Amino acid sequence: MSKPAIPKGTRDFDPIEMGRRKHIFKVIESVFQSYGFQPIETPAMENLETLTGKYGDEGDQLIFKILNNGDFLAKADHEALASSDYKRAAFSIAKKALRYDLTVPFARFVVMNQHRLSFPFRRYQIQPVWRGDRPGRGRYQEFFQCDADVVGTNSLICEAELIRVFDEALMRLNIPGVVIHLNNRKILAGIAEVAGVTDRLVDLTVAIDKIDKIGREGVEKELLERGFSAAEINALNPLFTINGAPDEVLNSLRKWLGNNNTAVIGLNELQTVIQYTHSMKLKHATLMVDPTLARGLNYYTGAIFEVKVTDAPVGSICGGGRYDDLTGIFGMKGLSGVGISFGADRIYDVLEHFSGFANETSVTTQVLFLNFGGESALLCIEWAERLRSEGHHCEVYPDEAKIKKQMKYANDKHIPFVVLAGDEEIKAGELTLKTMSSGEQIRLKPVELSAYLTAMGPLA
Amino acid sequence: MSKPAIPKGTRDFDPIEMGRRKHIFKVIESVFQSYGFQPIETPAMENLETLTGKYGDEGDQLIFKILNNGDFLAKADHEALASSDYKRAAFSIAKKALRYDLTVPFARFVVMNQHRLSFPFRRYQIQPVWRGDRPGRGRYQEFFQCDADVVGTNSLICEAELIRVFDEALMRLNIPGVVIHLNNRKILAGIAEVAGVTDRLVDLTVAIDKIDKIGREGVEKELLERGFSAAEINALNPLFTINGAPDEVLNSLRKWLGNNNTAVIGLNELQTVIQYTHSMKLKHATLMVDPTLARGLNYYTGAIFEVKVTDAPVGSICGGGRYDDLTGIFGMKGLSGVGISFGADRIYDVLEHFSGFANETSVTTQVLFLNFGGESALLCIEWAERLRSEGHHCEVYPDEAKIKKQMKYANDKHIPFVVLAGDEEIKAGELTLKTMSSGEQIRLKPVELSAYLTAMGPLA
Repeated sequence: MSKPAIPKGTRDFDPIEMGRRKHIFKVIESVFQSYGFQPIETPAMENLETLTGKYGDEGDQLIFKILNNGDFLAKADHEALASSDYKRAAFSIAKKALRYDLTVPFARFVVMNQHRLSFPFRRYQIQPVWRGDRPGRGRYQEFFQCDADVVGTNSLICEAELIRVFDEALMRLNIPGVVIHLNNRKILAGIAEVAGVTDRLVDLTVAIDKIDKIGREGVEKELLERGFSAAEINALNPLFTINGAPDEVLNSLRKWLGNNNTAVIGLNELQTVIQYTHSMKLKHATLMVDPTLARGLNYYTGAIFEVKVTDAPVGSICGGGRYDDLTGIFGMKGLSGVGISFGADRIYDVLEHFSGFANETSVTTQVLFLNFGGESALLCIEWAERLRSEGHHCEVYPDEAKIKKQMKYANDKHIPFVVLAGDEEIKAGELTLKTMSSGEQIRLKPVELSAYLTAMGPLA
Repeated sequence: MSKPAIPKGTRDFDPIEMGRRKHIFKVIESVFQSYGFQPIETPAMENLETLTGKYGDEGDQLIFKILNNGDFLAKADHEALASSDYKRAAFSIAKKALRYDLTVPFARFVVMNQHRLSFPFRRYQIQPVWRGDRPGRGRYQEFFQCDADVVGTNSLICEAELIRVFDEALMRLNIPGVVIHLNNRKILAGIAEVAGVTDRLVDLTVAIDKIDKIGREGVEKELLERGFSAAEINALNPLFTINGAPDEVLNSLRKWLGNNNTAVIGLNELQTVIQYTHSMKLKHATLMVDPTLARGLNYYTGAIFEVKVTDAPVGSICGGGRYDDLTGIFGMKGLSGVGISFGADRIYDVLEHFSGFANETSVTTQVLFLNFGGESALLCIEWAERLRSEGHHCEVYPDEAKIKKQMKYANDKHIPFVVLAGDEEIKAGELTLKTMSSGEQIRLKPVELSAYLTAMGPLA
């Protein structure tokens, strides 16, 4: 066959990348756990009908569908196949699909398991998702999301906690310049009412969602194209000029929108969230009330979040918000929830950009026992076993190869220590331990090895 | 829409199941690491042509194919569609598929990354695989494999290490009655030669592979049906009667097969492997040379392993073997390797059968701060933050609900401690800590809380 390859937009992860990814997941997971979130996992494959209609027309087209097993043509819609109606045909030959995000499967999980969950239910979920997007820089067809959600309460303490979760996790990951953007869908709705464009709220949010990419002028141009009048656009002026610390922004917004009931509810909610974050004391990130933050997903109804990094060549690295009725689509009404998602792949890119990966993130062997064959090899096998039982990672080189080749292996794999047991050492009941970084060699009795290595630290 | 569901043969994992699964993965992973194995991951989706033809005709039919995105009919084989030739049609509308095991993707990975890997390359990989098998008890369409392989050496030290990996991991998992079955494909080939059925080696292995299910009589019946003569079947007699300790079995096999060169090579290999395991000293499992062990996969060429559990209602929980040319199918010849796979889902079932899950495997919250609203809630938010910074997992109940409801939540979630801070406590600058198991309550200053909890242990 031809040279092997993997599908565009997918990736293999080698041991170094795996060490870094595990580090990211571990930090995020341990912060989730410290706030009482518990793990769940859902299957990669969902019924296609669970997913369709939840992500808009564009999203529906990006869902990977799984061909029915066996004779999929037996029950196919042959009329659709013959008439090239691929959308209709797909439903007749694919009943399952790969999950597109973790939020819809979570809502499905909550509805199916409602009778055995304790509400408010706090779950986290770290799993890959799949989207048929055109692959590009930082855009993959398989990528990991790390989500935490609380459902079954509308308490704003949850919003504040999730802001602190962003703050704590990104601090522990050593990401500099973290800015948490905060807004509320009710403020956006109020702005639309005040500007007299309530009927075009979706158009408005879609346009201002692009402000990072196309700037204020671009947004205004797009609004014009979407049929907004010059007067209506003019009425949005304060949206682009209000700025300052969170309390200042809230005050300015109150002056502008104070007569609008919807906006005032949103402003009060944000004020309470900010009050709670004062009790929690953010340690690392800057919190910013950003009335231009819109977020594309239509199920958000209250607070919305997005996390950006100053001076890093990526868009947002995290997002989230409150949704009042996500489980409603599966028949369970009135369950309010709020959730966030960390984009592990973008965080990886940011850390790489800032050279932010510490050496300790790599999983490696601490000691390589060189293989001189015969009795020496048998002794090394025995010593290596003892060392493992004392908590050390070690390997016996499997072949009696040239020393140079064995040493090159230790070097390539960044193994810090090498054990040599030649005839002379064995006669003396000892072994030689070589520290690769310094070239230093010492003689030890086999029973002394573990204590010596522990004293040297795992990666001396 | 109708009640939500998940595809047959797939599962959701709730927090309790997740805690147990994480425990299994963690034990296996830490043993892999102590033998110098490093992690890799490969994408869920592989090119369909990477997978087809590797698992036999039956396997090919069980591979989940992913419908091409967008207008998949534009480039479809309309002739095949119209003539109901679903096998041919599938290839014209699906270019990608879900991985069926971890071995073929690993071989593909090694070939693609050969220039940056250090050989012998030791990797582990813990990921789900998907198979369109008919779902049943203990048989899922999505399940996890935990694989470790060494490629780039034919040293038999690797076989012995992998036997020790089985032994150590299953000991740490507290699985009783572990028996590691060991055989060698060259012995099977030698048996076929001695019985005069070399041309029917595949038929022979397929039949004896079923001995656990259908017994000796069943195997003999199947061999008859496959055209073996009574004399040929009679020549296989010793296969079913030889037993005893590994060295005894090897001796008996030598008496039977000692004149056959292929068998002798296999016997010598097993003898060396057993010698190495003596140096390593198995701690937990029973090692058994089992000439009736065949294993279905055709790529095995040397040692083969299977791990079974006495008195547990599952088949094998682990398997593996040596393959001399797995990367050859992707154009890289002469790279010998040996690998094993732990079936995490079956191990889960075995542990459940033996009630083998310890309480510590569940991830939970240590302290719940009850929510009395107002100043109390703000103080609790602050105290909870301090407790987290000192390494404790805690939650503030988000709503000012009835105490009974809040206590029920703590109970349902198995949270061992609850903090109450009413007016009286706040006035005294204190809080009340209640131990749920005993009902005991004590008053503490907020700064004393962390030390007290640490002294009590995580799940007192």
